[in-house]
Amino acid sequence: MDAAEATGESDGMPMILVDGLPANAVPADDRGFSYGDGVFRTLAMRRGRAQWWPRHYAKLTADCGALRIKPPAESDLSRDIQAIAAHLPDCALRITVTRGSGGRGYAIPDDSQSRRVVSANPLPDYPAHWPEQGVSVRLCELRLAAQPRLAGIKHLNRLENVLARAEWNDPAIAEGLLLDEAGNVIEGTRCNVFIVEDGALVTPDLTRCGVSGVTRDLVIAAAGRNGLHCRVEAINRRRLETATEILLVNSLIGVWPVAALEQRRWSDFKAAALVRKWLNAFDHPLH
Amino acid sequence: MDAAEATGESDGMPMILVDGLPANAVPADDRGFSYGDGVFRTLAMRRGRAQWWPRHYAKLTADCGALRIKPPAESDLSRDIQAIAAHLPDCALRITVTRGSGGRGYAIPDDSQSRRVVSANPLPDYPAHWPEQGVSVRLCELRLAAQPRLAGIKHLNRLENVLARAEWNDPAIAEGLLLDEAGNVIEGTRCNVFIVEDGALVTPDLTRCGVSGVTRDLVIAAAGRNGLHCRVEAINRRRLETATEILLVNSLIGVWPVAALEQRRWSDFKAAALVRKWLNAFDHPLH
Repeated sequence: MDAAEATGESDGMPMILVDGLPANAVPADDRGFSYGDGVFRTLAMRRGRAQWWPRHYAKLTADCGALRIKPPAESDLSRDIQAIAAHLPDCALRITVTRGSGGRGYAIPDDSQSRRVVSANPLPDYPAHWPEQGVSVRLCELRLAAQPRLAGIKHLNRLENVLARAEWNDPAIAEGLLLDEAGNVIEGTRCNVFIVEDGALVTPDLTRCGVSGVTRDLVIAAAGRNGLHCRVEAINRRRLETATEILLVNSLIGVWPVAALEQRRWSDFKAAALVRKWLNAFDHPLH
Repeated sequence: MDAAEATGESDGMPMILVDGLPANAVPADDRGFSYGDGVFRTLAMRRGRAQWWPRHYAKLTADCGALRIKPPAESDLSRDIQAIAAHLPDCALRITVTRGSGGRGYAIPDDSQSRRVVSANPLPDYPAHWPEQGVSVRLCELRLAAQPRLAGIKHLNRLENVLARAEWNDPAIAEGLLLDEAGNVIEGTRCNVFIVEDGALVTPDLTRCGVSGVTRDLVIAAAGRNGLHCRVEAINRRRLETATEILLVNSLIGVWPVAALEQRRWSDFKAAALVRKWLNAFDHPLH
């Protein structure tokens, strides 16, 4: 009996593997549940291939390291992903790694064993015109707290994102942008942000808050290879609003240009098209 | 078959009820696990009675409200607690309430149903002399981030506490004190803090970070009833170090006086004894 048969969910979503075994539950004493003591990744599986997998695994390992959680072996995760790919070749994968089970209290047990949970969900069905014609975004009221010890890490403490996302329910608003207490833009609720300014790419500094995503890293790397330096620095609201373009990136959407932010409008998406070309090239093993 | 028999754990710990049913796992799509999207309480059960229960339930309801999570009915939680009391009359209870199951993505599903998890763990066996002779504490390196939207709430995003608690493993250190970025003391990793200064009680302002505990509220209320005003304000490190006494409080420890903080020493614990008397009085239905 294989994974999908065991869960009885080969036709429907989701499909979940907990430490490699089909399951739909996690132990109630998991520290991910108790304290959000873990990290995660969201990535696209298309035609049975986990997109940008080596980069995602490297980032997962780095995030685990930042919290001193033992990362799962690449071979174990690859096997999980292949088991899912056999049944759900096109899906959104979520990989969660927690510090595992462990008692009452914040102290980390000496014998803690990290736990991995790989789940498949439907790929989101965003409106087809968003990548080409751009999206409408808003500025969130919630300001991100500055915690340098956790900045950049995609950890499980995501209440700020939940609260920010709860600020709107108009489906025409594709994303909300988050500022820090100083009023600098940091990210979207589920994406990273780039702006184009005087022909150059700039992306927010994430050393005090925010999540540093794999797609952001790819864009920075691709810019460098294409002779276009990408600066990483604080971006205040005025710079955001007067940018030539604003781009939103993550592993599921690729790149979306911003067409509307509050009263501002954009319609020339040259940089977005270029970044999309770069990202598509990364899919190609030859590039 | 009752709860303890069903889990086969009437003799050992822990015993867990998920939405009232014996279980040792929670659904893998629970938003508590995915995002830390929930709140919790830790309280003492002694001789079959959940200590300060009405206060704990009120705080649980308030914390749920702050995150717009529907709180469980008091009758449901009381029934869970009684089921546990029948088998484990002396234990540490943890009550977790999450936003329930809900898809991939931060947006809250329209049909989200909160989930309650009540678990019993052994009461911690701290050294018997700590309450009377005081404890040794340290200052943590980690600085708490300021997030007014989450301050005061005992939510499931507790990575700061986990990282702070991981800073030491000397069992002679009972607790670590946490400062904010401005250098003001906020709390311990698992307790609230009071200082005595010129005969008055002062406790840190928790409007920008920290968890506001039930025992803290009880002490503030008791001080008022006893004609002793308790001020709530910013307390910097110098005031902490020059205080007449430092008290640590929570629902499991009651009150511990601080005997040693870095190089400073204290040995006169009059206020701690008084606060202990107040807290014991709250246990008594006549008071």
